[in-house]
Amino acid sequence: MQIGFIGLGNLGIPIAENILQKRQQLFVFNRTESKTHPLVAKGATFCSSVKELASLCDIVFSMVSDDAALNHVTKGNDGIAQNLKAGGIHICMSTILPATASQLAEIHDQNNNHYIAAPVMGRPEAARTGKLNFLVSGNKELIDKVKPLLQDAGGAGIWEFGDNIAAANVAKLCNNFLIVSAIESMAEAINLAKKSGIDTATWMNMITQSVFAAPIYINYGNILIKEIYQPAGFTLRLGLKDVNLVIEQSREVNAEMPVGQLMQKRFNEGIANGLGDHDWTAVALMLK
Amino acid sequence: MQIGFIGLGNLGIPIAENILQKRQQLFVFNRTESKTHPLVAKGATFCSSVKELASLCDIVFSMVSDDAALNHVTKGNDGIAQNLKAGGIHICMSTILPATASQLAEIHDQNNNHYIAAPVMGRPEAARTGKLNFLVSGNKELIDKVKPLLQDAGGAGIWEFGDNIAAANVAKLCNNFLIVSAIESMAEAINLAKKSGIDTATWMNMITQSVFAAPIYINYGNILIKEIYQPAGFTLRLGLKDVNLVIEQSREVNAEMPVGQLMQKRFNEGIANGLGDHDWTAVALMLK
Repeated sequence: MQIGFIGLGNLGIPIAENILQKRQQLFVFNRTESKTHPLVAKGATFCSSVKELASLCDIVFSMVSDDAALNHVTKGNDGIAQNLKAGGIHICMSTILPATASQLAEIHDQNNNHYIAAPVMGRPEAARTGKLNFLVSGNKELIDKVKPLLQDAGGAGIWEFGDNIAAANVAKLCNNFLIVSAIESMAEAINLAKKSGIDTATWMNMITQSVFAAPIYINYGNILIKEIYQPAGFTLRLGLKDVNLVIEQSREVNAEMPVGQLMQKRFNEGIANGLGDHDWTAVALMLK
Repeated sequence: MQIGFIGLGNLGIPIAENILQKRQQLFVFNRTESKTHPLVAKGATFCSSVKELASLCDIVFSMVSDDAALNHVTKGNDGIAQNLKAGGIHICMSTILPATASQLAEIHDQNNNHYIAAPVMGRPEAARTGKLNFLVSGNKELIDKVKPLLQDAGGAGIWEFGDNIAAANVAKLCNNFLIVSAIESMAEAINLAKKSGIDTATWMNMITQSVFAAPIYINYGNILIKEIYQPAGFTLRLGLKDVNLVIEQSREVNAEMPVGQLMQKRFNEGIANGLGDHDWTAVALMLK
């Protein structure tokens, strides 16, 4: 079984490295070619186009930045769908609109191959330590087939959302909204605590050892308390992209999201304030 | 050592019961006398006034609903401060403005007795199972003295914020803001998930077993998914009181809180929509 990987960004690289290490082979393609070099040095096979990669593989992972990039690598004569062999599987890890997943799954169907939605939760360090969570939806048999591969990719948790292909992407948007909201709320609370003269580290220690003892609060709380906004694990610019998807989906289904809309406003302000390349926790820097 | 308890609300009752059970004695006073009856039936001693109770006790717990009620039971000729014996300790568990704690501590000082800030985190069921968290600030020696009593009251965690008497109340306001924000955000995400056609219980199960595996998300997530908004563990009306304190404190120290202000608006809308006596998770009912 030949495996390919398209999209070597911050999170794509450690995931691709995990697969390469476990499977001892991997075809790689990236728009910016230089990003393939470290993987090729470790034994991956360089491909000069999506078409070349897809035609060589049984399974293709994609981890590109947004819906447009995903459409670009998937559709058309040079895309994954038309070039992947019959029965091949495209595992898409990007955070995208649920409707995009549905459309692409249909295109794969028309080409007698398959699409699986597998958006991933976790920052690069979680990928490196094998602590990612994959949210998956699509055909059950296919999912059972790719599960060991998702584990090899660094997945500690694989969460199934059924055969509606868009379901995992809905779940992922809901997760990211909760994370964004938790980051902003922690930032506001820390600012209030600091200006009120209490020791913020003691406070954070208390909440993360009691009622908020969860990875999101522990990890982002640590970043916020120490104000480590660069290098970014996940940029504010990508954060805005996800918040925009959340709001687009909420409009699509007429779901009211007052905090969601506020977060879209805050992230847009962050970009306007030059924080686009900072970690998304840098929304804290805008609080007076 | 004689112990007294003032304020038998939803949370006051199980805390008072814990103390009575462990210490086999407790003087009780409540504005609405009938609420003392179950405790008296279990062996507590009824007091007909704050003055009577304070004059009989070495340590007085108070768990009243707001700053005004606390000022009322603490200040003046009939209040705790003037009637508690020299060296006596008033342990205040209410969520109040930090400035109120500072003022009352000074009044106790003038009366040669003491005030300890010990706002409590946890709902009635946490009190009944001894899983409360106390946030404490004030004189270190006094805190060491009352710690065993806070444990007997149901405290699994006792978190110290130093000798600035107002510090624990600042921390408590920050906690409650985070909780309110988490509830609203979960409600918005659940609404989005449901309207997008995914199974919300599966989604909640996933987040509370992975990146949001914390008591706040597990407990409130369960209430939101099952839509159990009555009986209220903590009413939306009391929630608004706390949100108002958060915003008042943020104005006091000039700390910007965009989500905080949005939550104040949401809770006011909740009251206007007749949800005041529902659990504060009922903000979910306002999401279209």
